[in-house]
Amino acid sequence: MILDKINDVNDIKKIDPKDYPELAEEIRTFLIDKISKTGGHLGSNLGAVELTMGLHLALNLPQDKIIWDVGHQSYTHKLLTGRKSGFDNLRSYGGMAGFPKTGESDCDSFNTGHSSTSVSAGLGMVAARDLNGTGETIVSVIGDGSMTGGMAYEALNNASKLETNFIIVLNDNNMSISENVGGVSKYLNTIRTSNTYMDIKDGIYYKIKELKSGDKIVNTVRRTKSSLKHLVVPGMFFEDMGITYLGPVDGHDVLAVKKAIEEAKKRKMAVLVHIITQKGRGYEPAIKHPARFHGTSPFDVKTGIPLSQSKASYTDIFSTVMTKLGARDSKVCAITAAMPDGTGLKRFKNMYPSRFFDVGIAEQHAVTFAAGLAVSGLKPVVAIYSSFLQRAYDQILHDVCIQNLPVIFAVDRAGLVGADGETHQGIFDLSYLSSIPNMTVLAPKNKWELSDMMKYAVSFGKPIAIRYPRAEAYAGLEEFRAPIEYSKAELIYAEGDVCIMAVGSMVKTAEEVRDLLNEYGLKCSIVNARFIKPVDEFAIEWAAKNHKLVVTLEENVLSGGYGEKVREVFDDIEEKTSELVTIALPDEYVEHGNVDILKKELMIDSKGITDTILSRLQ
Amino acid sequence: MILDKINDVNDIKKIDPKDYPELAEEIRTFLIDKISKTGGHLGSNLGAVELTMGLHLALNLPQDKIIWDVGHQSYTHKLLTGRKSGFDNLRSYGGMAGFPKTGESDCDSFNTGHSSTSVSAGLGMVAARDLNGTGETIVSVIGDGSMTGGMAYEALNNASKLETNFIIVLNDNNMSISENVGGVSKYLNTIRTSNTYMDIKDGIYYKIKELKSGDKIVNTVRRTKSSLKHLVVPGMFFEDMGITYLGPVDGHDVLAVKKAIEEAKKRKMAVLVHIITQKGRGYEPAIKHPARFHGTSPFDVKTGIPLSQSKASYTDIFSTVMTKLGARDSKVCAITAAMPDGTGLKRFKNMYPSRFFDVGIAEQHAVTFAAGLAVSGLKPVVAIYSSFLQRAYDQILHDVCIQNLPVIFAVDRAGLVGADGETHQGIFDLSYLSSIPNMTVLAPKNKWELSDMMKYAVSFGKPIAIRYPRAEAYAGLEEFRAPIEYSKAELIYAEGDVCIMAVGSMVKTAEEVRDLLNEYGLKCSIVNARFIKPVDEFAIEWAAKNHKLVVTLEENVLSGGYGEKVREVFDDIEEKTSELVTIALPDEYVEHGNVDILKKELMIDSKGITDTILSRLQ
Repeated sequence: MILDKINDVNDIKKIDPKDYPELAEEIRTFLIDKISKTGGHLGSNLGAVELTMGLHLALNLPQDKIIWDVGHQSYTHKLLTGRKSGFDNLRSYGGMAGFPKTGESDCDSFNTGHSSTSVSAGLGMVAARDLNGTGETIVSVIGDGSMTGGMAYEALNNASKLETNFIIVLNDNNMSISENVGGVSKYLNTIRTSNTYMDIKDGIYYKIKELKSGDKIVNTVRRTKSSLKHLVVPGMFFEDMGITYLGPVDGHDVLAVKKAIEEAKKRKMAVLVHIITQKGRGYEPAIKHPARFHGTSPFDVKTGIPLSQSKASYTDIFSTVMTKLGARDSKVCAITAAMPDGTGLKRFKNMYPSRFFDVGIAEQHAVTFAAGLAVSGLKPVVAIYSSFLQRAYDQILHDVCIQNLPVIFAVDRAGLVGADGETHQGIFDLSYLSSIPNMTVLAPKNKWELSDMMKYAVSFGKPIAIRYPRAEAYAGLEEFRAPIEYSKAELIYAEGDVCIMAVGSMVKTAEEVRDLLNEYGLKCSIVNARFIKPVDEFAIEWAAKNHKLVVTLEENVLSGGYGEKVREVFDDIEEKTSELVTIALPDEYVEHGNVDILKKELMIDSKGITDTILSRLQ
Repeated sequence: MILDKINDVNDIKKIDPKDYPELAEEIRTFLIDKISKTGGHLGSNLGAVELTMGLHLALNLPQDKIIWDVGHQSYTHKLLTGRKSGFDNLRSYGGMAGFPKTGESDCDSFNTGHSSTSVSAGLGMVAARDLNGTGETIVSVIGDGSMTGGMAYEALNNASKLETNFIIVLNDNNMSISENVGGVSKYLNTIRTSNTYMDIKDGIYYKIKELKSGDKIVNTVRRTKSSLKHLVVPGMFFEDMGITYLGPVDGHDVLAVKKAIEEAKKRKMAVLVHIITQKGRGYEPAIKHPARFHGTSPFDVKTGIPLSQSKASYTDIFSTVMTKLGARDSKVCAITAAMPDGTGLKRFKNMYPSRFFDVGIAEQHAVTFAAGLAVSGLKPVVAIYSSFLQRAYDQILHDVCIQNLPVIFAVDRAGLVGADGETHQGIFDLSYLSSIPNMTVLAPKNKWELSDMMKYAVSFGKPIAIRYPRAEAYAGLEEFRAPIEYSKAELIYAEGDVCIMAVGSMVKTAEEVRDLLNEYGLKCSIVNARFIKPVDEFAIEWAAKNHKLVVTLEENVLSGGYGEKVREVFDDIEEKTSELVTIALPDEYVEHGNVDILKKELMIDSKGITDTILSRLQ
């Protein structure tokens, strides 16, 4: 095995170039094998094997810096920087992260997780390099999907004025998580299929191969002259902006990548190296099902079939209810930011294509676009993960809520998400949404309630958000299905001693806590909050006057969350019999790992909560 | 006066075309006269007079829709839609807003205020139009400055796939509020000076005049053929993306604008009409001092000089301290998002140009760029207004705070800002910043404290935000200048009865409240909070145990703000003698108007606060 010789950073430089293709294959086999057991991001990593090898050969790590946009494609980078053994515990609690972490290796120069940040971070590091007088090479690696995020464009606009070296590698696989959308994709496609080699100023040529379905195209080399370059030089837009364009380069030819990077290092300006790769390269199931193998659970390598059939998730419930709402009301539209699969909107897309909008990785646009639909009488449902919706905070506040427009936010992956870690935990949405005037915020306790809340939301007529977790949809408490009423909580059990007021997913936990408290002879009421904003003041008053202790539970940070809202009401209640404990997530980022383990560590599992309650009752 | 004939929407269509230039001049005179008395946005409005006239002639309002990006250039639109008399109370409490408001006229189709939203909103309205089967024309008017915001690009990327009409008017004056930056500007400039007429497919030509210094350039008309169009057709990038490009058009020729819009209406796709205008057109002081006349206070029309010399603002103090910090520490850098003047960073720019970065209207990039500087050992100060920093919430959370990087946020215009209204009030920053782990949030009581806090911040070594108002810097309480200590509040008066714990600007108000309470024979302690996050638990305990009433004061919404944090601590204090009242802004948007009037209406002036306190003591 050539891979056995790769144990630390720069070990790849000792490998004979003729062995690069074999090493690449071994890396692919390694990744497929490991990810099939741990789960993780597969397609993007299989696509970036040779690209990463080329970068490592052309650069001098850790002095030189690579910023991986999003970061889910950094597995080969981790493998080449002494972290091979980390793959056995990939994305596990205490194990290796699935994204770059500066704390994990000095070869990781900047933490990523969300899209389209790498060029901005890279530009900052370039400016710092020049001010500090160090001379390292700085490379931002960004996918064509991430190029649909506006932030990348803000950065390119700034890169264009550089008079110092900065390398932007455009890893172009013509895909986001699902298919790519929009004009930039079209533009890049023009380049990709333009059937020309790169010129360029120095007379250097790189091969471009047609990657789809294995065909090769006959390439014609044309030398270009300046006066004609608009006609034949691809990437002219970048050139016009002031960014040197090199490419397209075959991203599965290690030496071609290396050569392009070495060439790019020579320029005293921003250089965009356009590298063509194939997502899922080398593994047929990942090529055929790019969305499924973008981030995958453990699977059978031979067939590509997941090892365990997952039970119906909240996303599945949302998916179903959206098709029903779409049938019932032709004003209902659906919007996703590059996640038709992940959000469950694919079925809506297939049934009502004219009312479905995939805007690309562009959360800001998604929200203001929805505002435009809503101001015109439609009922847009914007389905975005909690942590990604953070990027549209201003658009929610400024474009939707000032005008009090009926946009429905389906906030998936709210609460702890587990293996993706700090950048993906959806533990801030209750805070950032609740601070916005005119916004109403709900969370369902179980699968039926998500369905009921969605129906409630489409007839609500004002901004409304429903947040639900990345989890199996809870099927308990089926008998509790009182109609959703504005600002009304739902009483599940009225018993005495302790009253737990729980948000969404924590209602299930509250049941477990109740059982544990019963073992101590304590009676426990449970209130399902339903509305995080506005809170149910009557329910709080009832709780305050009929218990010894009132406890709020939420999978969100304390600041600005449900508990603080309850406390504002609670404190003004006269003649209350109880004290209030607000249990929420601590004021810190939560690392990757199994959600159950994380909850235990954070003392918001049933055992931890019960202990807190017992200590307060003593 | 031709202007006398303009009293309602579409009245302009009754004007003889030969009178357009005269009408334009009358509008300019009208605007200069009115704004010289009320203050308001001048330069952008003087530039958009003919552009607006042309739009109104080509469109059928209110059926057709215009979305004004940012919206500060909509004065002529307001004037042409029956709101001439509104200019006497422009931006006053209860008077006409300085931005488009759907509630003000059915000719205002979408509220704006922040940059780069118009294309997204327009696309939403286009999709709705087609689903609803109505047939109106929809036009987004966006400035070249707003094109530096990534959100506009996200929208263009989506516009490119349209198979239905949508018109984007690019109002290109080669300026943001100050000079424009970056590659897009460079690209547009290439077009602007390309010395060619537009082709286009239908053989239509528009004049382009050289606007600067009045010279005319000799224009050569060239018919272009498809195969050569890369060479001679400007705007090829837009064309490659799938957006039809028309232009450049002389934005001070009413008929040329009208004709271009009429031509654009014919296309079944997105059309970008590139219109060249001159900011400040027709008023020499506004042309010479674009930043000063972007938004101006009342001024003398003859000289352009402001009527009243404003006293030193917090921005001025920040400006001075930044030059000192820059001299003292070569690692201190400064970043602005297109506001070197407004943020007061111009002096830093002049003194330390290599450490100054104007990134354009690109708050997201600004923050992640700063993260890149910070991760490389520098000390970046990001100066952005409170309401605009909302757009970088995710970048603060994801790029700065997860990595715990020492980025300093100078949050100007925090609290009520007055005349700009809902979109510009900086009343959410305490909430959105406090919910973020690893973030520290401060607010100064007076000018010296802002200076001290900035010095503290640059040596703090972790993410930190200092928020200060758009106001004269308070020069009182000079004698209170204890060193800034982490998480420590400052005791101003220790007296009894009531203890006011006030955030930043509210300390001054607390002094007034104290005087009023003294008149009622009540003694009043005052604590200057200094740290909103983390709060000073000892100060809260002291307050709780030594008074009858503890009152928090903040110019921020309650949810997630200072008061809620104090309450979390307060409730757990045993043996306290007091109750807690949290006075903050209500959960609603605050309209435009004089800040003193707004504070009175919202009961957070000294009188209103005193009344609240007295009612709680009874």
